[in-house]
Amino acid sequence: MSSIGEFTNRGVVLRRRPVGLLQDSDVEITDLDVAELAEGEALVKVDYIGMDATVRSWLNDAPGYLPPVAIGEVVRAAGVGRVVATRCDAYAIGDVCTTLSGWQRYCVVRDDLFTTRIAGPEDDVDMQAVVALYGSTGATAYFGLLEVGRPQAGETVVVSAAAGATGSVVGQIAKILGCRVVGIVGSDEKARVITEELGFDAAINYRTENVAESLREHCPGRIDVCFDNVGGDILDAVLGRLAQRARIVLCGAISVYNDTHKPPGPSNYLELIRTRSLMQGYLNLDDVPRYPEAVAQLSAWAADGLLRYRAEVFDGLEAAVDSLNALFTGANVGKVMLRP
Amino acid sequence: MSSIGEFTNRGVVLRRRPVGLLQDSDVEITDLDVAELAEGEALVKVDYIGMDATVRSWLNDAPGYLPPVAIGEVVRAAGVGRVVATRCDAYAIGDVCTTLSGWQRYCVVRDDLFTTRIAGPEDDVDMQAVVALYGSTGATAYFGLLEVGRPQAGETVVVSAAAGATGSVVGQIAKILGCRVVGIVGSDEKARVITEELGFDAAINYRTENVAESLREHCPGRIDVCFDNVGGDILDAVLGRLAQRARIVLCGAISVYNDTHKPPGPSNYLELIRTRSLMQGYLNLDDVPRYPEAVAQLSAWAADGLLRYRAEVFDGLEAAVDSLNALFTGANVGKVMLRP
Repeated sequence: MSSIGEFTNRGVVLRRRPVGLLQDSDVEITDLDVAELAEGEALVKVDYIGMDATVRSWLNDAPGYLPPVAIGEVVRAAGVGRVVATRCDAYAIGDVCTTLSGWQRYCVVRDDLFTTRIAGPEDDVDMQAVVALYGSTGATAYFGLLEVGRPQAGETVVVSAAAGATGSVVGQIAKILGCRVVGIVGSDEKARVITEELGFDAAINYRTENVAESLREHCPGRIDVCFDNVGGDILDAVLGRLAQRARIVLCGAISVYNDTHKPPGPSNYLELIRTRSLMQGYLNLDDVPRYPEAVAQLSAWAADGLLRYRAEVFDGLEAAVDSLNALFTGANVGKVMLRP
Repeated sequence: MSSIGEFTNRGVVLRRRPVGLLQDSDVEITDLDVAELAEGEALVKVDYIGMDATVRSWLNDAPGYLPPVAIGEVVRAAGVGRVVATRCDAYAIGDVCTTLSGWQRYCVVRDDLFTTRIAGPEDDVDMQAVVALYGSTGATAYFGLLEVGRPQAGETVVVSAAAGATGSVVGQIAKILGCRVVGIVGSDEKARVITEELGFDAAINYRTENVAESLREHCPGRIDVCFDNVGGDILDAVLGRLAQRARIVLCGAISVYNDTHKPPGPSNYLELIRTRSLMQGYLNLDDVPRYPEAVAQLSAWAADGLLRYRAEVFDGLEAAVDSLNALFTGANVGKVMLRP
C-alpha cells in the first residue's frame, strides 16, 4: 500500500476491454501509488464520483473526444472533493473542486481545464448537489439546452432519459424558461417523479406506450426542441414530430453505448430538410472554462426552489461497476454517484 | 383547345401517383384553359422549365414543405419566361420572371413569394443561365452553402452530386471563397468535368471507388463542410470523416426519392457528438424574398468568369418525364431543363 504522509490511495483500474456491459472481471480494485506532489499540483480527497454514460464509451478502444482509458489505468470519471495537500497556488487546503478524479479515493489536480474550484475551505457545501448540478451534468444540461437548443418561452421541449441525471435538469431549466416540457422515461415511477416532483408537464413511458402516438398527444404544436440522450427509435419518433426550425441537441445515445455492432441511424432524418431543422452534437468539454457561469445560474435557481436534484448513492469502490451499469439498465432516478 | 387572344396553353398533368420513377403513363399531355387574367395577374410564356429532384417528391401523396400535386393538376416545377400579358402593376410586358410555372407553356403569375422579376423588356437575357444560376438552383447553392455551411477560406468542402445542377454551383462558390473542394460524382466523365472545367480540387467516383477511403486521401485535414444532395451511404462516409465543428447542409437525398420504402438513416450520426458538428436541413423557399441578393452576387461572379454553368436541354412537353428521370439515373451534367 502506497501513500504520502497520511494519504493512502485505492482505486479501480481497467484490466481488459468490456464487451457490452462492464463486468467486475473487467476491472481490478487495487492500491495505488500516491506520488509526492510536484510544483503546481494538489491532492484531492474524493467524496463523490459521478456516474456518466460517457465513462462506458471511454473503455472502448476507439477514438473519442478523449483518448480511451488504457489497460492498467484508473477508470476515468468526474468527481468532487476537498483539497488535502497543495503545492499549487490555485488551490488552498479545504477548497472544494470538481475534476476528472477517476474511480479512486485520492487524485492529483492541477490548475487546468478539467478542474474547477467550487468553494473555499470555510464554505458549507452539499457535495451531492455539486455532482448532480454543479459539475459536468449541470453544465451539460445548461449549455447544451440554452446554446444548441435555444428554447423560447411557449415552445415545446422534449427530453429523453428525462428522469436521468442530465435530462431531469434539462427539463427543469426548460420549465423555468417558460416552455412546455414532455419527458420520455422507462417506468411509471420515473414518470411520476418527473411530473409530480420535478414539474414536467407530461411524461411518456416508452416501455408501455407508442412513443410516436404519445408525442402526437402531448405535443399538439409539434416539437421545437429535443434534448436527446438516447438515440435509436426514440430519436426517430421525435424526428417525425418536429416543428419548423426545430433544434435537436444530441447529447448521447445511451441506448447504443453497450451495443457491439453499429446502431441503425435515424431513418427519419430527412425530416430535418422538410422542417428546416438542425441536429447538433454537444460536448460539455468545450464549455469547461465557462462552468462558473452555469454554476452561478443553477445555484441561484436551486436557492429559489426552482431546481431540484435526485441522487442515487452507491457505497464503496466495490459498487463502482454496478453503479455505472445502473445507468444502462434504467434503474436509476436522478444522478447516480459513488462514495469511494 | 383553350386560349385567351393569341395564347394557347398545353401542359403535363398528373393522372396517377408514380411508384418509383415517373412513367409516361402516370401523366397526360393535354390542352389547358387559359383563363382571362384577373386584376393583379400576369401571363408568362415559359421558355425553360428547370428539372429539380424535389419535383418527384411533390408527386407523392405525402406531406412536404408544399402540398402534393393533386391528381389532374399540372406538375409543379420552376421555370422562367417573359410576361406576354399583364393586369399586375409589378410586371410589364417583356419582363423576365422566374416562378413556379409548372410543366406547361403559359402560366399565370402574381406579385407573390414564388415569382421574381429578373430583368426588364429591353434586357438581353441568357434564359438558360437564369434557370441554371439565377433561380432556385443558384439560390439554394448560395444561401445553403453560405448560411448553413458557413465555409471559411482554407477549409475543406465536400459536395455530393457534384456534377449536378446545385452541386456544381456549390463547388464553384466554395472555390471562390478559398476552400479546398472535393466533389463526389457517379462517372469518370463527371469527375473530369468538375475538376477540369469547374475547378474542383478533386473528384471521387462513388461507383468505382471506396468513398470512405477516397475521402481519407483527398481530405487529409478532414471535412469542415459537406453540402449533401444524396444521403445514404455517401452521407455515412462523410460523417465518418468530419473535422471538429463541421457543418453538414442537408439539401436533398436524391438516392432515396424514388424508394418505395423508408431509407436507412445515417448510422454514423453519433459522430456529430464526438466532433460537435451540426447537420441542418436547408429549403430555398425560405429565402425566396432574398433571391435578388443571390442573383446579384452570382451574376457578378459569372461576369468575372469565376462561375460557369452546364445545361442539358430537353425539347418538348413529350420529353418532360425523361428529363425529370435524367436526374435520378445520373445521366446529366449540370442543370437539366425543358423547353416546353
